[in-house]
Amino acid sequence: MPLTDLSLAELAGYRPVRREPADFDGFWADTLAAAARHELDATFEPVDSPLRVITVHDVTFSGFGGDRVKAWLAVPAGAEEPLPCVVEFPGYGGGRGLPHENLLYAASGYAHLFMDVRGQGSGWSAGATPDREPDGGNPQHPGFVTRGVLDPRTLYYRRVVTDAVRAVQAARAHPLVDPDQVVATGISQGGGLSLAVAALDPRLRAVAPDVPFLCDFRRGAELATAGPYQEIVNYLKVHRGNVERVFDTLSYVDGVNFATRGRCPALFSVALMDASCPASTVFGAYHHYAGPSRIEVYPFNGHEGGESVQDEVRLRFFAEVLATGGDL
Amino acid sequence: MPLTDLSLAELAGYRPVRREPADFDGFWADTLAAAARHELDATFEPVDSPLRVITVHDVTFSGFGGDRVKAWLAVPAGAEEPLPCVVEFPGYGGGRGLPHENLLYAASGYAHLFMDVRGQGSGWSAGATPDREPDGGNPQHPGFVTRGVLDPRTLYYRRVVTDAVRAVQAARAHPLVDPDQVVATGISQGGGLSLAVAALDPRLRAVAPDVPFLCDFRRGAELATAGPYQEIVNYLKVHRGNVERVFDTLSYVDGVNFATRGRCPALFSVALMDASCPASTVFGAYHHYAGPSRIEVYPFNGHEGGESVQDEVRLRFFAEVLATGGDL
Amino acid sequence: MPLTDLSLAELAGYRPVRREPADFDGFWADTLAAAARHELDATFEPVDSPLRVITVHDVTFSGFGGDRVKAWLAVPAGAEEPLPCVVEFPGYGGGRGLPHENLLYAASGYAHLFMDVRGQGSGWSAGATPDREPDGGNPQHPGFVTRGVLDPRTLYYRRVVTDAVRAVQAARAHPLVDPDQVVATGISQGGGLSLAVAALDPRLRAVAPDVPFLCDFRRGAELATAGPYQEIVNYLKVHRGNVERVFDTLSYVDGVNFATRGRCPALFSVALMDASCPASTVFGAYHHYAGPSRIEVYPFNGHEGGESVQDEVRLRFFAEVLATGGDL
Amino acid sequence: MPLTDLSLAELAGYRPVRREPADFDGFWADTLAAAARHELDATFEPVDSPLRVITVHDVTFSGFGGDRVKAWLAVPAGAEEPLPCVVEFPGYGGGRGLPHENLLYAASGYAHLFMDVRGQGSGWSAGATPDREPDGGNPQHPGFVTRGVLDPRTLYYRRVVTDAVRAVQAARAHPLVDPDQVVATGISQGGGLSLAVAALDPRLRAVAPDVPFLCDFRRGAELATAGPYQEIVNYLKVHRGNVERVFDTLSYVDGVNFATRGRCPALFSVALMDASCPASTVFGAYHHYAGPSRIEVYPFNGHEGGESVQDEVRLRFFAEVLATGGDL
Amino acid sequence: MPLTDLSLAELAGYRPVRREPADFDGFWADTLAAAARHELDATFEPVDSPLRVITVHDVTFSGFGGDRVKAWLAVPAGAEEPLPCVVEFPGYGGGRGLPHENLLYAASGYAHLFMDVRGQGSGWSAGATPDREPDGGNPQHPGFVTRGVLDPRTLYYRRVVTDAVRAVQAARAHPLVDPDQVVATGISQGGGLSLAVAALDPRLRAVAPDVPFLCDFRRGAELATAGPYQEIVNYLKVHRGNVERVFDTLSYVDGVNFATRGRCPALFSVALMDASCPASTVFGAYHHYAGPSRIEVYPFNGHEGGESVQDEVRLRFFAEVLATGGDL
Amino acid sequence: MPLTDLSLAELAGYRPVRREPADFDGFWADTLAAAARHELDATFEPVDSPLRVITVHDVTFSGFGGDRVKAWLAVPAGAEEPLPCVVEFPGYGGGRGLPHENLLYAASGYAHLFMDVRGQGSGWSAGATPDREPDGGNPQHPGFVTRGVLDPRTLYYRRVVTDAVRAVQAARAHPLVDPDQVVATGISQGGGLSLAVAALDPRLRAVAPDVPFLCDFRRGAELATAGPYQEIVNYLKVHRGNVERVFDTLSYVDGVNFATRGRCPALFSVALMDASCPASTVFGAYHHYAGPSRIEVYPFNGHEGGESVQDEVRLRFFAEVLATGGDL
Repeated sequence: MPLTDLSLAELAGYRPVRREPADFDGFWADTLAAAARHELDATFEPVDSPLRVITVHDVTFSGFGGDRVKAWLAVPAGAEEPLPCVVEFPGYGGGRGLPHENLLYAASGYAHLFMDVRGQGSGWSAGATPDREPDGGNPQHPGFVTRGVLDPRTLYYRRVVTDAVRAVQAARAHPLVDPDQVVATGISQGGGLSLAVAALDPRLRAVAPDVPFLCDFRRGAELATAGPYQEIVNYLKVHRGNVERVFDTLSYVDGVNFATRGRCPALFSVALMDASCPASTVFGAYHHYAGPSRIEVYPFNGHEGGESVQDEVRLRFFAEVLATGGDL
Repeated sequence: MPLTDLSLAELAGYRPVRREPADFDGFWADTLAAAARHELDATFEPVDSPLRVITVHDVTFSGFGGDRVKAWLAVPAGAEEPLPCVVEFPGYGGGRGLPHENLLYAASGYAHLFMDVRGQGSGWSAGATPDREPDGGNPQHPGFVTRGVLDPRTLYYRRVVTDAVRAVQAARAHPLVDPDQVVATGISQGGGLSLAVAALDPRLRAVAPDVPFLCDFRRGAELATAGPYQEIVNYLKVHRGNVERVFDTLSYVDGVNFATRGRCPALFSVALMDASCPASTVFGAYHHYAGPSRIEVYPFNGHEGGESVQDEVRLRFFAEVLATGGDL
Repeated sequence: MPLTDLSLAELAGYRPVRREPADFDGFWADTLAAAARHELDATFEPVDSPLRVITVHDVTFSGFGGDRVKAWLAVPAGAEEPLPCVVEFPGYGGGRGLPHENLLYAASGYAHLFMDVRGQGSGWSAGATPDREPDGGNPQHPGFVTRGVLDPRTLYYRRVVTDAVRAVQAARAHPLVDPDQVVATGISQGGGLSLAVAALDPRLRAVAPDVPFLCDFRRGAELATAGPYQEIVNYLKVHRGNVERVFDTLSYVDGVNFATRGRCPALFSVALMDASCPASTVFGAYHHYAGPSRIEVYPFNGHEGGESVQDEVRLRFFAEVLATGGDL
Repeated sequence: MPLTDLSLAELAGYRPVRREPADFDGFWADTLAAAARHELDATFEPVDSPLRVITVHDVTFSGFGGDRVKAWLAVPAGAEEPLPCVVEFPGYGGGRGLPHENLLYAASGYAHLFMDVRGQGSGWSAGATPDREPDGGNPQHPGFVTRGVLDPRTLYYRRVVTDAVRAVQAARAHPLVDPDQVVATGISQGGGLSLAVAALDPRLRAVAPDVPFLCDFRRGAELATAGPYQEIVNYLKVHRGNVERVFDTLSYVDGVNFATRGRCPALFSVALMDASCPASTVFGAYHHYAGPSRIEVYPFNGHEGGESVQDEVRLRFFAEVLATGGDL
Repeated sequence: MPLTDLSLAELAGYRPVRREPADFDGFWADTLAAAARHELDATFEPVDSPLRVITVHDVTFSGFGGDRVKAWLAVPAGAEEPLPCVVEFPGYGGGRGLPHENLLYAASGYAHLFMDVRGQGSGWSAGATPDREPDGGNPQHPGFVTRGVLDPRTLYYRRVVTDAVRAVQAARAHPLVDPDQVVATGISQGGGLSLAVAALDPRLRAVAPDVPFLCDFRRGAELATAGPYQEIVNYLKVHRGNVERVFDTLSYVDGVNFATRGRCPALFSVALMDASCPASTVFGAYHHYAGPSRIEVYPFNGHEGGESVQDEVRLRFFAEVLATGGDL
Repeated sequence: MPLTDLSLAELAGYRPVRREPADFDGFWADTLAAAARHELDATFEPVDSPLRVITVHDVTFSGFGGDRVKAWLAVPAGAEEPLPCVVEFPGYGGGRGLPHENLLYAASGYAHLFMDVRGQGSGWSAGATPDREPDGGNPQHPGFVTRGVLDPRTLYYRRVVTDAVRAVQAARAHPLVDPDQVVATGISQGGGLSLAVAALDPRLRAVAPDVPFLCDFRRGAELATAGPYQEIVNYLKVHRGNVERVFDTLSYVDGVNFATRGRCPALFSVALMDASCPASTVFGAYHHYAGPSRIEVYPFNGHEGGESVQDEVRLRFFAEVLATGGDL
């Protein structure tokens, strides 16, 4: 795999024009207000797992439309004081998996809430949350990106972003979570969702989007040679007349727009041989991010990005921000 | 592409053991009865198309759950007497398309009802019918085969088969259709649906499933190297504990089971280099078909099967059955 | 599939330098004069098909070298007055197929002559016209693009373009065709041939090349990652010393050169993710077209282009030109 | 690449039923007699090459239909006495190449005639002999296997086999060739042609077909996942009604049939991971070979077979046969 | 991906003939004795990691030839009593990675020694142990399987198996490890190595090879369409004369031979769509295993096998064996 | 395959900034001096081959570290006077093969020394020289490019370049070689090695690198979509922290740096559709070459480059230089 996008020198100066609907803020204010009318009702059931030094709870809370969304909350066994908490969102196609699958943050002393993504979780790790479509949305290309894509109100990712904002609230509802010490992160789709949360939850302390998806959909669709941006191409290949309407709809969940509303410290990462989330789409969000920010560049990686190397960088970033208050 | 399955000699003797739930007939009786409680309410709006010798109507009728399903009804322009009617169902991923896309049957003197398949129609021809999921079904693999696959009551194809049965009724509701001269056909998924209709609508006069999908799901999943049977593999790859449950659920819509209940004359076709619908899955249904039947074998074709050659064979078959009453 | 060529903004200003031999017009004048020495002898045999509202004739006429070339002529059943006529040429690898395969134009009230392409018709629809090579041409890469490619006089496409010009004359020879109301179209190779006809038949009323092949061969060979331009690459990979000679030969049938000689109204279409006929090769012809013209752009399609959507646009274009005389 | 066919144990007992036309021998007697009516007129022009210890001549002789066919004749520089001669035929898609490309046999002390294959020679080494088709044959799939495939008289390989028989005669016409010491060989297509020559030229002293193509066309077409047998599949995919006719035609040039008529000692080679010429098609010919024979098996090779290892085996075989008279 | 090997019913009865050298036991006795002449010298340096509830040590010990081999030892933070210990070996191409990458076993209350594999660790997780080749072994195909493959004494996997046996000894050398409670496991290559350890370390309490590589090399090489068995094919493709010698050499490290020498309880897992380690190679080892054993079958998985589902099964198996003494 | 790099016009002006370590010359002076401390001890054993007009010797000489390196020396049979000599190095993955594999230069009247490349020779032609790694180098990606890549002293290509310089000395040691008439050449890796020799052996008379590998490693790694530059990408994908260190190490064997030190006449060749050695990496070396030079451009070839066409060009170049003293 060669470089898949601009050179690093070009990326350093790349700041795309944004496509932002006039009612972007109103749309999200209304959406979150509507969700708030459903009680959060976060429940935490201890799970019988093979783990001994980490305790996992089966979490359920009311997300978009009051739908019950699943998550895991993992904490160091025997913890008694409120802990800082990492809220994490899965990559595209994955679910929360099994309780013993994601141990890094709890093993590092954090409370760790790992949200399920509605409807997904049959691609590489198992999910447990259905996505209701009472209105049927619209004919869609297989996958989730074009589900309900003709109207921001039926758009699938409107529901997921709302779930993500509510997941942070669910984390704060647990007594072992210090509600003022919550950070968000995720890889690919999870990175895009963490950016949305940074924009929509002003109390968030830090955000760390890795090789984020959901940023500059049109450029993603025009450049990506793998991954979910291609669902947009495949949809528009058939629904030829809907090009502008589709990108207008998607602009309501575009990470480049959310970035301009993020205020907490942000650590991005990007890979220059990423065929799924081309580097310029990530730099587009990074350069528009409104808070203090920096970016880790992986020049010879694809969409896997920094993996365990970035895990360490990210954990140090969280520790530093939580310790210092976050001036990078 | 080489042969993808057994040799023709082996296929000639291949008659698989069926996996059939005890309440198969009751399930469908209940399902159709529930659908019947919604009025059909078939409407036919003339369409403004560039066509001159064929007239197309935009059809809407109430299918499963009373959901409004779209179709086209095409007839020779100026027809005044009731005509024999071909009801056709699209292949996987396609929709009804545009009014001028499928002209063969109307150009051959038939009324032609071409049903949209709910939710699909973003893969290669455009659809216009959403698939509502008020209960959310379950996390699913992208596509439609595993939508709601943990329970026959939420299974996506339960809804589509019901739509298909209702589409025949909608056709019969038009004054230019002779209700006793209706036949059904389709390619791949459309072929599977036509088999279901042959089992569930005893008034149907003939059925012509081409390279049918939806037949012997387990063998399909174990053999196919392309196409939608692979969605089952991909789902079970993640949801490892659901193997038997998934195949139990799918057995309610298995064409091999429907075949044992078909009575009208049937013309099958099969391709020996078909990577999507391996020949033995088609022969399985063919050899279990309960009415008079024959099969066209395309020894050097893949899933495209007989295409326009089979079009001619199929039109002669329909003409012959309708003329003679159907002893092949 | 991402964008395969320049951006739309760049394409808007893209006007390539042409490679045109000095004797281009003389070459074609001589070629057509030589063909004209063979009587056209167009015959029209009614075909026994399953169609009822369309009548199809098996057409045979004398093309290049007096070789007998096949076609179908389809007309609305019962037509008695001369009709406007669409002459269509198949895409690369295809033939005229079966009489009931292409019904759109006759169903829309046109006479429709669908020409077979000599030698082809074993790739995706069946052909019935051999390509004689009494002189043997030259060793060639499998396919048709490099057949006889060392000399414009032996070049395969010289023969096919001549056939195409003669096909229009054959159409005019039928009593149900209004000889002053003939238009030409085709997709890919068919689009390239229709451009040639627009240049060589001044009586043609309109031309509609869709995602045309046969335009700017060198750029096509340097950019295409699929499709028949690659035959040139494969040929030159072995015959390394023939680079300039091959492109000189091909320039005699280059659509960019024919475009400068077209006068009737033209409707082009182009797809920005086309890997076979990169968008700049199409814009090259479009921007050099000498008559009134416009272009439909499909930003998220590959070589399939606009398909049935473009069918409707094209039919409206033909209707408009024939009604108004063609000022776009 | 795994094993592509039966196991070695199964192959050892594999002897297919042959498909042989009743007039096979008459057909070839007539064909060769017709060719014989054209004078051979073999000419040998010394070539200016960079070689110093090998002398190469540009050969031209009259093959099928009197068409002039090219070859190289290479001999050790300074040879003065008649030499044993290896006549070699290229693999599919190749031509005779440049004079300095194939040096093995002349460097080993043989006269070496390397025949061009008409029409080919644009795939991987350059050819210089056109294939005339004055009658146009038929629409064909790109390539050479289905050229003229509807009638044994127009079949492309009838012409090439005839050329091959004449090439041996041309070799014998050179004063530096001992006409009683001529052997034939080739890889893939070349191996198939050498088998034909062994059947049709009773004076041949030995034959060494390596991983031969042109053997048991139907099985080849049903099993191969690469290579030219696939052209038959692609042709029949479109020309569905011609299955039996095509295989009847091809049976006139089937190496399995020629094998039953070979009498000179034969050395075969076969590769068990060959995706182009599956091992059973080679064993089919080997087990039907009528003269003394043995076979080298390469268990972990694909279609490349034994390459330089087999070169040495083959050279020892030729030396042994020519020294001893050929009882293996 | 379809089934890649025999059906489950066939696999149930599949017990291959083994290829075992006469001096197998002597070879390993000598090899381990030679290794034992180097002091083990296991060192354990605490690592500064972001982890809080797990403590990781950087392990170094003397493996084959006295070479210093790396590993991680992870234990629950604050552990004071000897723990049961899981010794794990990485899959092909991977290394021990970073200290925070593999947390499952320590989080489940075990001491966990994760061995580096010499030379590897540049494929998907980082390694830190070089593989010395003072004698140069032989020309090899890129990768590790054919390194030194012409002689069991220079064979790469002789060194790695020796390292694996020594790794268990290193684990026992740590005060927090209960030396009588050590089990071994690994996926793919790691599974094959764990089988070797079960044969060579009679004190081992349990073994759990998942989708093991290194079993029945010849069948693996003849069937696999992905993964490292293909290196053998690629090597033999060039070194054609070494077929028997290579498989003789590899038989010294074949898991099917080690299986006959294992006595502790064993839990295997296998995937029926595994293209890298075909199911029959795993069943071959399983059916020859000499101790109590069972196998988990994943019918719709590829080489990923059971992943986190199998993690849970395996942890319960270890717990059960360690609690009961191991009668399954 | 389309163009894989800049256009020819851009390439004409492309002259990259070089990355050259300060001690480049000292490093090589020391390296060659260390090698010189091992006696060359070139031995030449006549080989029993099937060849008659060429005599081949099995060559062994002491290369890097005194390791014994193999080669073939081929001369026209019966040669008695010293001959000009072509020293050739194989492409990546290949070895010296069998004695009768490479006959061109001896058949053209040269002495021809064809060096084996240590460790390689299992990819497409057989090698016979092991690569000792007494220090183990480092974990490496499968292949040879990243073997020992963390330090120029352990770098694999340091050993191979040294072998190459010594191979020229070995050639000069044979009585049939005129030591003042030695030239060097090779394709791909062989081309890169010949460039190194031109820099390090001032007595060399001419050099002809074809589509050379080992030039501008970073650009190669960022652009190549095939071939061994990708090993660097794969290595750095895992060893993310070593980017600068790896390219610093590789700069010691970079052909762009060697080019600035070459003085003898040079003939380069380059292919514009080369996916393995992108054209700009070749032009980078060409434009930095310090002696008289020219370049053959193959505009429609991939990494195969000019093959037998370039063979002839190269032979004429050598003849000309040796005849005239080398002013191009």
